[in-house]
Amino acid sequence: MANQGSPHGQSLSSLGEFGLIAALAARFPPAPAATVGIGDDSAVLATPDGNVVAAVDFLIEGRHFRRAWSSGYDAGVKAAARSLADIAAMGAVPTALLVALAVPDSLPAEWALDLASGIAAECERAGAGVVGGDTARADSVIVSVTALGSLPAGRAAICRSGARPGDIVAVAGPLGRSAAGLALLTAGWPDHPGAAPVPGGLVAAHLRPAPPYDAGPEAAALGATAMIDTSDGLLADLGHVAQASDVAIDVTTSALDLGDPLAAAADALFPRTDRDSAATTKKILSWVLTGGEDHSLAATFPPAVSLAPHWRVIGTVRAGSGVTVDGAPYEAQGGWAHF
Amino acid sequence: MANQGSPHGQSLSSLGEFGLIAALAARFPPAPAATVGIGDDSAVLATPDGNVVAAVDFLIEGRHFRRAWSSGYDAGVKAAARSLADIAAMGAVPTALLVALAVPDSLPAEWALDLASGIAAECERAGAGVVGGDTARADSVIVSVTALGSLPAGRAAICRSGARPGDIVAVAGPLGRSAAGLALLTAGWPDHPGAAPVPGGLVAAHLRPAPPYDAGPEAAALGATAMIDTSDGLLADLGHVAQASDVAIDVTTSALDLGDPLAAAADALFPRTDRDSAATTKKILSWVLTGGEDHSLAATFPPAVSLAPHWRVIGTVRAGSGVTVDGAPYEAQGGWAHF
Repeated sequence: MANQGSPHGQSLSSLGEFGLIAALAARFPPAPAATVGIGDDSAVLATPDGNVVAAVDFLIEGRHFRRAWSSGYDAGVKAAARSLADIAAMGAVPTALLVALAVPDSLPAEWALDLASGIAAECERAGAGVVGGDTARADSVIVSVTALGSLPAGRAAICRSGARPGDIVAVAGPLGRSAAGLALLTAGWPDHPGAAPVPGGLVAAHLRPAPPYDAGPEAAALGATAMIDTSDGLLADLGHVAQASDVAIDVTTSALDLGDPLAAAADALFPRTDRDSAATTKKILSWVLTGGEDHSLAATFPPAVSLAPHWRVIGTVRAGSGVTVDGAPYEAQGGWAHF
Repeated sequence: MANQGSPHGQSLSSLGEFGLIAALAARFPPAPAATVGIGDDSAVLATPDGNVVAAVDFLIEGRHFRRAWSSGYDAGVKAAARSLADIAAMGAVPTALLVALAVPDSLPAEWALDLASGIAAECERAGAGVVGGDTARADSVIVSVTALGSLPAGRAAICRSGARPGDIVAVAGPLGRSAAGLALLTAGWPDHPGAAPVPGGLVAAHLRPAPPYDAGPEAAALGATAMIDTSDGLLADLGHVAQASDVAIDVTTSALDLGDPLAAAADALFPRTDRDSAATTKKILSWVLTGGEDHSLAATFPPAVSLAPHWRVIGTVRAGSGVTVDGAPYEAQGGWAHF
């Protein structure tokens, strides 16, 4: 605890394991439901609704983020958002995180503490706290975040398997922005000489996804039949829903938001002399249809549903199998495959 | 799913992410409490007792195990046991695991599936199932296991903070065996030429710890005032209890089990010509007092308690602070410090 007050400029090895844990814990918000929090063998949470929703996701340096692009804060937000979005995608309310953090000895302590601040900020946006974790040494930064949540009593989780022919498909949150932000970063934005100003918020959308947590329980209340978070890319994720529900899903491109800021990013990335309007539209469409990591929510609803304004209807559920775009297979269909 | 039937001899990259997940899932036992298991965004568990107990631990190649010493099965048992023991140490009953597994592309698929079998076997020993997880690529094998459990309705968790002066200290499960097993492995057992037969079970105790899960809820029922699992080493872990409870703890060495098989390991490791009886006893004592990773349970109880036979009384709680051995500071006191 002696190190807790002034970790700045220290390396992790000088801070020590217990100094690091104390400094991390000091940045994390508590969870209202926790009767035992950080510091014991396990955390204990009250579950008055009689259920617990749980998901775990890795955030691995070199795979899911680069320290050259992401601050510790960015990585913390992303690590928390990836797992918290999985809770919302069940129609549940996030309550708590367990944070396992492995870091190199050489990592500046401040980077690890910024990561804790990013996790804390995203937790607070989701209404959750941090109740426990683990620390270890590794050759690169590895974060494993377990998110816990709860369903209102008597309400079933919204699984991938409930979509029915005749349902509509709707999305809450942006699509393609993370992929466009990654394309900008890969091309050298925002730092390369002569770079045009970065289109608003796309790099931030890649570095710090902002899942619409409230839309998860809202979708459940509106009668959603299936739901998923768009982590692998819209078509890949709708493919999981189609497979689990034994239905076909068709996406209507005219219903998708392909305008600013995605068009501005395409303008910035593709010099005007090389520009072909159809090719640019195709590129934007590929961000929206196959770009991962937006962590928006895609859900199916009975056709008579009256949706809230931030849900955008983008497709329909039919009898059959697979995912089509405007009634036809999508040639560049795909998503993340981790192996 | 096409790969699920015959993963033997395949590399993970040929199995594919979804093939790996399907093959892992096929080896994992389900959790009785799960209403949604592997395959959706999150798992959902019923918590009829109104609480959930949760802990996460890393198992990292090169840090917590070596592939030269540990089979995939060994690593799986250890990864599961580390987290499950944390649930038992609260007096709780393990119910479910979430398994996040990052592996190199070059890892044989069979190694990863053996790891799943080890996790499955330890889950079944603890009465838990696997309800979810994540997979990713990394340069070495990294497992992050989140364990969930439950406390009987109305029963409080046994925290580190409840020990009171006058309590007794007792341990369920072995002490020092994991450390002795590690010493044997480090010295070349069981494979180096001319090695004496390995003393019974010590290498196995290091590679595949076997926490006494049932002893956790049993201790709670017997009125335990504080409890911890011996992951960092007995003195370090009792130090956590002493600090959290604001008490002093004294360990009585004459109450510790220093006999076979630890004595046999010391005989095997220290050639008789060099052997000094006091030095050997000191070495054995250091395994028992400071060796980590036994994942036995150490608890404090009111002095009038009538313990079950597998609890061994090894010390007393007094007013004050810190941990002593036979009333004096222990010179080699220490344990694991991860940074």
